[in-house]
Amino acid sequence: MLVNTKKASFDTPIYLESGRVLRQFDIVYETYGKINKNKDNIIIITHALSGSHHAAGRYEGDRKAGWWDNLIGDKKYIDTEKYFCICMNNIGSCYGSTSPLSIDPATNKRYGLKFPVLTISDIVQAQMKLLDSLQITNVHAVIGGSMGGMQAICYAIEYPSFSKHIFALATTAYTRPWAIAFNKIGMEAIRNDPRFKNGDYDTQEIQKNGLDGLSVGRIAGHISYLSPHSMAKKFGNRYVDNDGLYELFGRFEVERYLEYNGYNFPLNFDPLSYLFIVKTMNIFNAARGDDSLEQALDKIKAKLHLLSFSGDMLFFPYEMEQIYDIMTHIGKQNQTTYKMIDSDYGHDAFLVEVDKYGEYIKELLDE
Amino acid sequence: MLVNTKKASFDTPIYLESGRVLRQFDIVYETYGKINKNKDNIIIITHALSGSHHAAGRYEGDRKAGWWDNLIGDKKYIDTEKYFCICMNNIGSCYGSTSPLSIDPATNKRYGLKFPVLTISDIVQAQMKLLDSLQITNVHAVIGGSMGGMQAICYAIEYPSFSKHIFALATTAYTRPWAIAFNKIGMEAIRNDPRFKNGDYDTQEIQKNGLDGLSVGRIAGHISYLSPHSMAKKFGNRYVDNDGLYELFGRFEVERYLEYNGYNFPLNFDPLSYLFIVKTMNIFNAARGDDSLEQALDKIKAKLHLLSFSGDMLFFPYEMEQIYDIMTHIGKQNQTTYKMIDSDYGHDAFLVEVDKYGEYIKELLDE
Repeated sequence: MLVNTKKASFDTPIYLESGRVLRQFDIVYETYGKINKNKDNIIIITHALSGSHHAAGRYEGDRKAGWWDNLIGDKKYIDTEKYFCICMNNIGSCYGSTSPLSIDPATNKRYGLKFPVLTISDIVQAQMKLLDSLQITNVHAVIGGSMGGMQAICYAIEYPSFSKHIFALATTAYTRPWAIAFNKIGMEAIRNDPRFKNGDYDTQEIQKNGLDGLSVGRIAGHISYLSPHSMAKKFGNRYVDNDGLYELFGRFEVERYLEYNGYNFPLNFDPLSYLFIVKTMNIFNAARGDDSLEQALDKIKAKLHLLSFSGDMLFFPYEMEQIYDIMTHIGKQNQTTYKMIDSDYGHDAFLVEVDKYGEYIKELLDE
Repeated sequence: MLVNTKKASFDTPIYLESGRVLRQFDIVYETYGKINKNKDNIIIITHALSGSHHAAGRYEGDRKAGWWDNLIGDKKYIDTEKYFCICMNNIGSCYGSTSPLSIDPATNKRYGLKFPVLTISDIVQAQMKLLDSLQITNVHAVIGGSMGGMQAICYAIEYPSFSKHIFALATTAYTRPWAIAFNKIGMEAIRNDPRFKNGDYDTQEIQKNGLDGLSVGRIAGHISYLSPHSMAKKFGNRYVDNDGLYELFGRFEVERYLEYNGYNFPLNFDPLSYLFIVKTMNIFNAARGDDSLEQALDKIKAKLHLLSFSGDMLFFPYEMEQIYDIMTHIGKQNQTTYKMIDSDYGHDAFLVEVDKYGEYIKELLDE
């Protein structure tokens, strides 16, 4: 499936939860499949921290497919011969939508650290503006994992009549201190990196040479995306250079993996974007604006499908179970499903274990 | 209990596992209680990564007691009216024993990164030299948690006739990639810190102003010492400055905790020591030198007492259970006990939940 990216620019402001305003903004996005006559086959795919709008298919000449390509495509679990999918790059992200790297129209300079703190609600609000401009007023489903799952839950609570189905994978109703602590590593490492210069770095230079602080943050991220079991399976206690006693000085395979992924990450991701996006995750709380999580979840009219992964060490299954328990407690058990997928892959399971849950999603979508 | 520190210097070499030699070395240590006539009341306390020889009691004029003071002392679980305890500062550590901060007699310069890579076996070998000089040839028990537990296991395997009891708490027979990955964060953050200067930093300046790379490593460490449950209990989702919408920009209490502990750590600990010590933990493998863990554990003659903590996210209970299972499998069930202490405190439980296991240790010691 060959795909390409579209871009929409808006001169209408978004009033952010912080009280600040984005006077203009861009959103880049991709679509797969076609809207049918009844316009009842639309699915929104929401992406995670380091994800992008490139959820499926390939760009011309590109060998690598989108990040959920094993789930979405012609005759795949989310069948784009049947459904029309749209995936939008979150504002704040460095992949083309308005972000801390954009020019602030008020100063004609890059926003940098002066970019407004965004919330998941703000990100979804911006998406709704784009969908509105495309005359999409109702959708069949919103599907997302991790930070994408936070957006899905936000759609369910804040726009109750908008989507028939909400699929939230490997996520939470509010970010616990455990996940906030993992994010703290990267925030501090970036802030401490002298080349970060309080956000006034030379973007091209950083994209070329990387930023070590962001690499350290990504190393911490990868730990939280894996699990003790997935690491043991993947790396064991093998050394990269297994040469008798020399091994004492050598690197472990797990170290090589973390180095490789850590130091490559800043070549494809921006430190300012990273800071603002992890902040949206840290402060996500589905109950904010309501007296309780019960009250917030009580607004949901969609069918809410919760999928957790047994080995997830970032957003633990009990966090998803809490949502299910509350939905049951407030009498919404008939519109809620919960399934824990057995997996050793840790948090990453929502990306790599598609074959374990794809059919389940397909059935619920086709119901 | 008022205590003071002693220092022993040796001009005899230690031949290290790496093949390198320490021609001379110092060990500082503390003792509590008195050796009895039969010399059968001696207990060795081994310390963890950031611990020291100051396990119990107070220095004159000091308000803070040693790190295991709630376990060890007159009429405490390890009763120093009955037992004579000795706790030695590991070589490699920055608290007075020979370390990367010491002067290399071959060059008359600080070792720095040229200090030899140490193993847990090397650390224990150095301790044995000190014990030998004190004419201690047999002890009643060796007791340690985390990296101290690795040393205890090492005593059991490499000096089978030396100790009657071995207590290994919150530790493992070999460090898994999960723990190695956590250590990687600090190793990279220190290495990347321009003020680290490849180990050629000005020690006084760093002790005064700290080293951010080490702070980031300590933040990661603290995550692995806690657990999702202990963090939720301790910090909840509270903000430090809870001022309505302002909270969006504020810090979480968990962030303040990590900042406080992270940035204070380098004022009391040295980055070079940190690198060499985490390396000893990373490469610890009780089976090294043998064909299998079974073969290594089969050497044990002591009574081996294994204590794990249910919420430990660094060295998981199943790692301790593995040792117990092997001991049982090779017919040594009568000399092995295993107990999992129920605790939400994560890895730190071995330090803070003393009242949950102190009586158990006391009974086994007094048997």
